[in-house]
Amino acid sequence: MIRVGINGYGTIGRRVAHAVSLQKDMEISGVVKTKPDYVAKLASLNFKVFVPDKSYIEKFEENGMSVAGTLDDLISGSDVIVDSGPEGMGEKHSEIYRRSGVKAILEGGEKSTAAEASFNAYSNYSQSIGKKITRVVSCNTTALARTAFPVMESFGIKRIRATLVRRATDPNDSKKGPINAIEPSLKIPSHHAEDLKTVLGDVDVDTVAIKVPTTLMHVHSVTIETKKPVNRDALIDVWSSRRRIMLISGNDGRKSTAQVMDMARELGRDRSDLYEIAVWMESINAHGNEISYMQAVHQESDVVPENVDAIRALMGFMDSEESISRTDQSLGIKGRVI
Amino acid sequence: MIRVGINGYGTIGRRVAHAVSLQKDMEISGVVKTKPDYVAKLASLNFKVFVPDKSYIEKFEENGMSVAGTLDDLISGSDVIVDSGPEGMGEKHSEIYRRSGVKAILEGGEKSTAAEASFNAYSNYSQSIGKKITRVVSCNTTALARTAFPVMESFGIKRIRATLVRRATDPNDSKKGPINAIEPSLKIPSHHAEDLKTVLGDVDVDTVAIKVPTTLMHVHSVTIETKKPVNRDALIDVWSSRRRIMLISGNDGRKSTAQVMDMARELGRDRSDLYEIAVWMESINAHGNEISYMQAVHQESDVVPENVDAIRALMGFMDSEESISRTDQSLGIKGRVI
Repeated sequence: MIRVGINGYGTIGRRVAHAVSLQKDMEISGVVKTKPDYVAKLASLNFKVFVPDKSYIEKFEENGMSVAGTLDDLISGSDVIVDSGPEGMGEKHSEIYRRSGVKAILEGGEKSTAAEASFNAYSNYSQSIGKKITRVVSCNTTALARTAFPVMESFGIKRIRATLVRRATDPNDSKKGPINAIEPSLKIPSHHAEDLKTVLGDVDVDTVAIKVPTTLMHVHSVTIETKKPVNRDALIDVWSSRRRIMLISGNDGRKSTAQVMDMARELGRDRSDLYEIAVWMESINAHGNEISYMQAVHQESDVVPENVDAIRALMGFMDSEESISRTDQSLGIKGRVI
Repeated sequence: MIRVGINGYGTIGRRVAHAVSLQKDMEISGVVKTKPDYVAKLASLNFKVFVPDKSYIEKFEENGMSVAGTLDDLISGSDVIVDSGPEGMGEKHSEIYRRSGVKAILEGGEKSTAAEASFNAYSNYSQSIGKKITRVVSCNTTALARTAFPVMESFGIKRIRATLVRRATDPNDSKKGPINAIEPSLKIPSHHAEDLKTVLGDVDVDTVAIKVPTTLMHVHSVTIETKKPVNRDALIDVWSSRRRIMLISGNDGRKSTAQVMDMARELGRDRSDLYEIAVWMESINAHGNEISYMQAVHQESDVVPENVDAIRALMGFMDSEESISRTDQSLGIKGRVI
């Protein structure tokens, strides 16, 4: 059994904790919380709760919560730490992980240089096998890699151009938004372009990002110039063979992210999440050497299966297809629904 | 086994279908859909799908969906029909139900005169026992009745004044909102005041409603003048004894409807729903003969347990406490969480 500790039980951490607890070859050794809030209380129903260091214990005990130990204790009882705290903490913590010898996964908010490799299950699983620290790329980069890598494998890629229309904040946040505005990111290209290269390799990528007033999902508008000629049916075949891509149709009512997330609730997933990247069939165009499509990305959960696979890669599990299959089966990921 | 048909598989219908399927004394005989959309396709994984009449069959079959029969067929195979279609359809259908002799539940969008009784489990379960048609009052009225009835029982009520701050539309709707405005309902009092009387009896009630740009929940600000003097501890005791009221605190992070619904996702409920009415502890004031409080209402699901109890009442099940207990246990409703 691989013992997995979760350092940072926020949007990603809690979801990875749940997904790990479904794996036959893994168990959760504990989760680190910094505040004794409702999320900590609910976490304690399923997992041992640790704190960063001894100075936090009093605050938890004052709020009627018992603490299983500190981050150091969790590290000594774990084979892998998933570091899913606020941006920048992963890099800070990676020193501790290196010193203690525990393996670690950082999330996409961290710089790529903070880890030995970056990770996307389809694109470059093998680069993280046996490594000490890897980094699962962000939700947006994961989504781009999911749909672009199969294209690269089958048709080759000359260049990728993508416009990322981003949700303003997550649903459980009442501080930041939704904003009442459309806000282009004026740092061009957006950081996703560089990030995508960490998993796809050296390919010509350009991305821009625009924030809009919603919390549910991101939507990407993607154009890819391929090396070989491509047609729509061949492209759909390629994507259909990947379970983490879900081909959906607006014809039967899935016209916006509102209905895509409604579908996720109907599927009965944990926290009503959607792990798959949903590509609208109507948006798929392919002729000559050009592909274009639009995809919806559930920012809270699409990286969850990647984290599970990254744990196996770090632990030296060689067979990426087998890892992906195990993860997908445990999470109910079946590709195109019906 | 009580055979329950669902006529209208929308926001409420699909949730009631799921809740009914969890009851040991009930089963779903089928659900009626008018469109072969993604919701219909997902429904067909769990339930037999019927259509209003034969003219709909072709459209379903064209979309690769097989149809189990028409509404008439569903009625003959059911003991109770839950009519959860668009507003106004319940009243129209009630003629059909009366003619065929099947019992029926209408939802809160229908006029109270369309049914023999109105229903709230705490307030007036007994008035629907053995009736042919009853009506579960709306999400807002259900919420007001949930918290006001225990007050009425213990302290008596002279008058209720409530301001209902309403979500603009449901999360799966991308047509209507959220609006970018605050829109007071200029029909004063709002219809909720009259509706509340149908379950609480003749009490002095005044309500106003204000629409705001959000989809998650409603929030009510309520003031009640009691007949007997009341203090905060006594009030909290009274509410704590009712599982469908959840007393929550902003102190541990549940500061807005964003975190209340986030908590619901953590609880692992079906569709990440919250059946309970969440009352903020910090908002509870009680001294002399006056109570005031604020409560959050999950408009998509708070009436779901009431529908299940209403089915038992119609079928002549006498013991309201026992029905409420069975329903609550099946849905994981435990009152105050932790």
